[in-house]
Amino acid sequence: MSLDALFDPRSVAVVGASADPAKWGYWLASGALAGRSRRTVHLVNQRGGNLDGVPFLPDLGSLATVPEQVVVAVPPPQVRPVVVQGLAAGARCFTVITSGGSGPQEERELAALVTSHGGRLLGPNCMGVVDTTTELRLSWGDFPAGEVGLVSQSGNLALEIGRLLARAGQGFSRFVSLGNQRDIDAADALDALIAHEATRVVAAYVEDFRDGRRLARTLAAAHAAGKPVLLLTLGRSEASGRAAASHTGALVSARAVVDAVCRDTGAILLESAGELVDTAVLLAARHGLGQRRTRGRGQGQGQEQGQEQGQGQEQGQGQEQGQEQEQGQGRASRLGPGRVVPAGAAGGAPAAPEAARVAVVGDSGGQGALAADALVARGLDVPVLDGATRAAVAAHLPGRGGCGNPVDLAGAGEADLRNYARITRALLDGGDTDATVLTGYFGDYATANPAQTREECEVAEELAEAAGRAGRLLVVHTMARDTPALAVLREHGVPVYERIEQAATALAHAARFERATPYAPPERVPSPPPSSSRPVADGGYESVRTLLRSHGLDFPAAEFVGTADEAADAARHTGYPLVLKAMGLAHKTEAGGVALGIADETALRAAFARMRDATGATRYAVEEMAVHPHSVELIAGVRYDPAFGPVAVVGLGGVTAELLADTALALAPLTPGRARELLLSLRHAPLLTGWRGAPAVDLDAAADALCALARAASEHPELTELEVNPLLVHPGGAVALDAHGVMT
Amino acid sequence: MSLDALFDPRSVAVVGASADPAKWGYWLASGALAGRSRRTVHLVNQRGGNLDGVPFLPDLGSLATVPEQVVVAVPPPQVRPVVVQGLAAGARCFTVITSGGSGPQEERELAALVTSHGGRLLGPNCMGVVDTTTELRLSWGDFPAGEVGLVSQSGNLALEIGRLLARAGQGFSRFVSLGNQRDIDAADALDALIAHEATRVVAAYVEDFRDGRRLARTLAAAHAAGKPVLLLTLGRSEASGRAAASHTGALVSARAVVDAVCRDTGAILLESAGELVDTAVLLAARHGLGQRRTRGRGQGQGQEQGQEQGQGQEQGQGQEQGQEQEQGQGRASRLGPGRVVPAGAAGGAPAAPEAARVAVVGDSGGQGALAADALVARGLDVPVLDGATRAAVAAHLPGRGGCGNPVDLAGAGEADLRNYARITRALLDGGDTDATVLTGYFGDYATANPAQTREECEVAEELAEAAGRAGRLLVVHTMARDTPALAVLREHGVPVYERIEQAATALAHAARFERATPYAPPERVPSPPPSSSRPVADGGYESVRTLLRSHGLDFPAAEFVGTADEAADAARHTGYPLVLKAMGLAHKTEAGGVALGIADETALRAAFARMRDATGATRYAVEEMAVHPHSVELIAGVRYDPAFGPVAVVGLGGVTAELLADTALALAPLTPGRARELLLSLRHAPLLTGWRGAPAVDLDAAADALCALARAASEHPELTELEVNPLLVHPGGAVALDAHGVMT
Repeated sequence: MSLDALFDPRSVAVVGASADPAKWGYWLASGALAGRSRRTVHLVNQRGGNLDGVPFLPDLGSLATVPEQVVVAVPPPQVRPVVVQGLAAGARCFTVITSGGSGPQEERELAALVTSHGGRLLGPNCMGVVDTTTELRLSWGDFPAGEVGLVSQSGNLALEIGRLLARAGQGFSRFVSLGNQRDIDAADALDALIAHEATRVVAAYVEDFRDGRRLARTLAAAHAAGKPVLLLTLGRSEASGRAAASHTGALVSARAVVDAVCRDTGAILLESAGELVDTAVLLAARHGLGQRRTRGRGQGQGQEQGQEQGQGQEQGQGQEQGQEQEQGQGRASRLGPGRVVPAGAAGGAPAAPEAARVAVVGDSGGQGALAADALVARGLDVPVLDGATRAAVAAHLPGRGGCGNPVDLAGAGEADLRNYARITRALLDGGDTDATVLTGYFGDYATANPAQTREECEVAEELAEAAGRAGRLLVVHTMARDTPALAVLREHGVPVYERIEQAATALAHAARFERATPYAPPERVPSPPPSSSRPVADGGYESVRTLLRSHGLDFPAAEFVGTADEAADAARHTGYPLVLKAMGLAHKTEAGGVALGIADETALRAAFARMRDATGATRYAVEEMAVHPHSVELIAGVRYDPAFGPVAVVGLGGVTAELLADTALALAPLTPGRARELLLSLRHAPLLTGWRGAPAVDLDAAADALCALARAASEHPELTELEVNPLLVHPGGAVALDAHGVMT
Repeated sequence: MSLDALFDPRSVAVVGASADPAKWGYWLASGALAGRSRRTVHLVNQRGGNLDGVPFLPDLGSLATVPEQVVVAVPPPQVRPVVVQGLAAGARCFTVITSGGSGPQEERELAALVTSHGGRLLGPNCMGVVDTTTELRLSWGDFPAGEVGLVSQSGNLALEIGRLLARAGQGFSRFVSLGNQRDIDAADALDALIAHEATRVVAAYVEDFRDGRRLARTLAAAHAAGKPVLLLTLGRSEASGRAAASHTGALVSARAVVDAVCRDTGAILLESAGELVDTAVLLAARHGLGQRRTRGRGQGQGQEQGQEQGQGQEQGQGQEQGQEQEQGQGRASRLGPGRVVPAGAAGGAPAAPEAARVAVVGDSGGQGALAADALVARGLDVPVLDGATRAAVAAHLPGRGGCGNPVDLAGAGEADLRNYARITRALLDGGDTDATVLTGYFGDYATANPAQTREECEVAEELAEAAGRAGRLLVVHTMARDTPALAVLREHGVPVYERIEQAATALAHAARFERATPYAPPERVPSPPPSSSRPVADGGYESVRTLLRSHGLDFPAAEFVGTADEAADAARHTGYPLVLKAMGLAHKTEAGGVALGIADETALRAAFARMRDATGATRYAVEEMAVHPHSVELIAGVRYDPAFGPVAVVGLGGVTAELLADTALALAPLTPGRARELLLSLRHAPLLTGWRGAPAVDLDAAADALCALARAASEHPELTELEVNPLLVHPGGAVALDAHGVMT
């Protein structure tokens, strides 16, 4: 069922309406009334009363028409009766603000009741829903209108994001508060925002990913549709995991997994509300490049001071996309709208391994240099400009100015404000960079000298026009705040930042979005029927080795023995030199449970005696010693994530893997191609491909080994962890030298 | 000569005074006049005129009294005549705003003229000087009064820092614009700010470090005096180096060197003006913990809107320092003033290897969790709270709230605003954390409900008081901006941030400052007289090996030969297995110029022939093959930095060093103790100290090798680079397996 009734109901009923501004029922009712020109609004309170002359009806049974959406803001015990009455009255969409009963079970039953009638339920325990494009404001707080759609599991974070958006001249198209997600969940809400034309950028704060694979598919589909999804989540630290557990009882996915999923689906993972807003503002600007946004103001509750400019809705939707693509001297931009795949088109943006190139222009050498540093530190390129661009810039610069990159205006702006526009236009039109950052003082001339107000605003307009014509991003960092010229810039969709690091971070995220080449998230392998599943007695080497060999992994020849005599016998099959390992130890190496390069039977017996004394083990592996020149040790494993299921991990370094901390993750199972890419994404990948004259290892064999490991793990969900360490890869193949598993 | 005449002259003359607000001469003159109650002000302009009724005198010769400071704002050709006239009139301090002549040479001569008269010169080409504690405003722009002293080589950056400080309720005690540093340089200016009582935090933007060793001594002295120095510089990217070269012609020091110098001297290296301001505000608060700052407003030019609160000077200076140290239940804080060494005391703060512990309290589970993530990501600890603290917190929490860490108010704040103060106090007093972060909504209650204004301000005051009493830092992150409650917090010295990452970054820097144990920067080793310096013919292995052996470095036995027969002869001395190396190649390994493990003469002759064919080399080393179990390969070198001189570098990994990117730097020469610490600071240091059961390498031998290398480099300044790679360290010693140098 579509969520039309959630975002644009023809009629809405607020149950628990109130005339007391200290109560939620007041804000929901007055918010609903603000949309009366578009829809029928019923206010319900069994105790009667009225708001702004609109009388409160006693119950949902007394409405003249069917309410398409019912907002429930009554004490928990009354929630179910209200929903029952709503269903009887024909309502099929419920937004439950209060918690929905005595506990999770009751809430789940409430959701089941609604869905069994073909309806949908938002919440319970949510902050409501807002759609500024349909005048729907069924929530508390200030939701300025704009182009950002937000899905949030935290009310306060939504408010914080709203404040920061308003200060940047942006706001919300839609806001969905998820609450306890008993029916409508994050993926549902994201789907609705991704499909929403007026939502240019989708943002989400999610603590609990539920069906992670479905969410991953949603994220990948968003990228394919050219719509950026900005994700904020917790779990980078153990402390935030504690917070989540006490807060929503959410199972926190490992941050590295979320990171890998975002990278693979083209979603952008942020670290704070501020970073999210900075990036959203830039991505919305990139979309509407050169489009003047109409002034407009949402029905906010007036909490924000001095921030009225630029909060508006997009006009002429659906027409500007893809236009101007071929301008800017016909060279492709790595950041402009020319790279955006039109909504609905299949496939992602083409790969662009090179970094996005940024031109920097400032009226201060110091600020220009710090801007360049901030950009480069975030993976962007600040290249030397083409000769033609340098000449175009130099035409407007005094002798002292620098026209490399950063460009130093060195007083050219003070001499004539129009030089800001002239020089910035030369950079935007040059076509040798993808975006331009103007850093420093612009926007503040009129503060010291009000006579310059008009000219500065005109230059601001020229700057925005230049970006629109070139089809390239212009980003302004300025020490000014809330001046008329900045209002003009924002009105015309030019992102303005107070700190250079905000501009740099937002540009870097946007560049990553453009560059991403999402993968279709793999389906989970269905568990085989019990008869075909091999028994895995424990997570020990012996049984895991058997399992992995059956999936095609190569191991050295080995025999498992209990006594020194048996070991000597076994050595006749494996030959010398060999390896002796004690079984059943968590940290074999440290415990003296591994002896390498045993040359003959005397040495074997001595090693056996030593090892038995040190470890007390009762079972040992006698194993062929794998010696391969030019080999590299990898660690490879699969772990179960609570939301995303089996995740494959590969890293460099056997015993030193922890120190190297060079790992790559992807949702399992893997294809050989994906496994290869994962290997090549390691920081130490050059060691695999022929470092300093050495031959390359057999990457295909390494990739096949990863695939086999992932396949084995997928077919054995009883193993929450499966690890090969080390996996020795060499020019002739890949061989697993040790392995273990962890049982559920 | 002291700089008293620069910061608090009894009389000042502005030459080039103007009544036209479009001219610098106007701002300098009006700024000077604002200090008339404290000093005599002369305005000079040869064309006559007046400002605010003060007549312009024709020249410095016509003044009735000697001007202690002369500010020169006349066209460059007139600068020298004005200075000559000033010297004749008895002036000994000159601040030259305009450039001082036709070029560097003329400027140097001007400075020499002044210093030869026992005077000092600031600039030329500078923005002037401000001291808000002496009503001295000899500059352009808005310099709000506060506790931060700034030395800057960029005028715009100083303005930007001023804006950001004002928005945070802080400002400047002193500002020195360095300009071209022909006499007074960064170290001079920093010395003056460090010694200045009313300057609580010193900030500097420096592009050109000049005498880096002297600057390093200044930075270390500041830390010893308990005064934080915050340093901003460029050079993280090649692009910013280009900017510096075109801008000031500065030689840019390698960023890694500046980083190492800051770490070793206890200075804080920042990445942007915003980060600098966030950290300065917090460090000033830490200093004045619990001290109410008097309201006061500097003679700013009114450019900042709505930011009037909290710009004030410290009262009761010199008394509050160190007080309250023993409060907070007597447990030492790793961030509070209890850790500050009183000004003037010798030595640095004691070491605290553990991370600073932060308590987080928020009215939203999501914001609390994101705060915890932001703090932990920056190296801070967000620990589980003690039972006693949990109980104290729980007393004020409703059932739903979480009292682990982060603490989730879960509505306790809405229920009663005082709960913010009660719970925050419990955390501050608990003594199990060093600082508390309050995150979320506080400061904005009165916006939605003006009736709460008074109560919210009272709670703000209680919060500040609680921090002062506990002697621990309280930091507030809030979605509000410029509300009355935030003004109260700032007035009482509680840092307030708009974004949680600002709070986390500032806390992390402050914690690093507290933890730092500065080293006295080593003096450069004077170059020996020519007769004693050994000739170093080239940077090749043969001569560098001779040099390094003479300094005590161990190398394997080697002979240098030209033919296969000579090689076979040499092998009789070194023995087999041996190593054959071709000389004179930049990348021996890649070029096939290294053969290891040659077992006998046949193999040697074959390897020799192959190598000669591959490389065409005419000279070869026949070298004993060093085989040491449990050895680790290091890279060690010394490089010359333009400002800081010889810098020692040690890193992990011989041929893979570039991939590992794990290096540590320090100014050379090194002591053995310092060299050890450098080795132990490597990310991979556990490989040296016995990783997973292996024996530790001989750290003392490794440290001695580094010292010898650094000594050799210091004595041979003709080598701009000297490198041993690999340096093989093992449980029995350290041996250099290859080495080379780069000649100037």
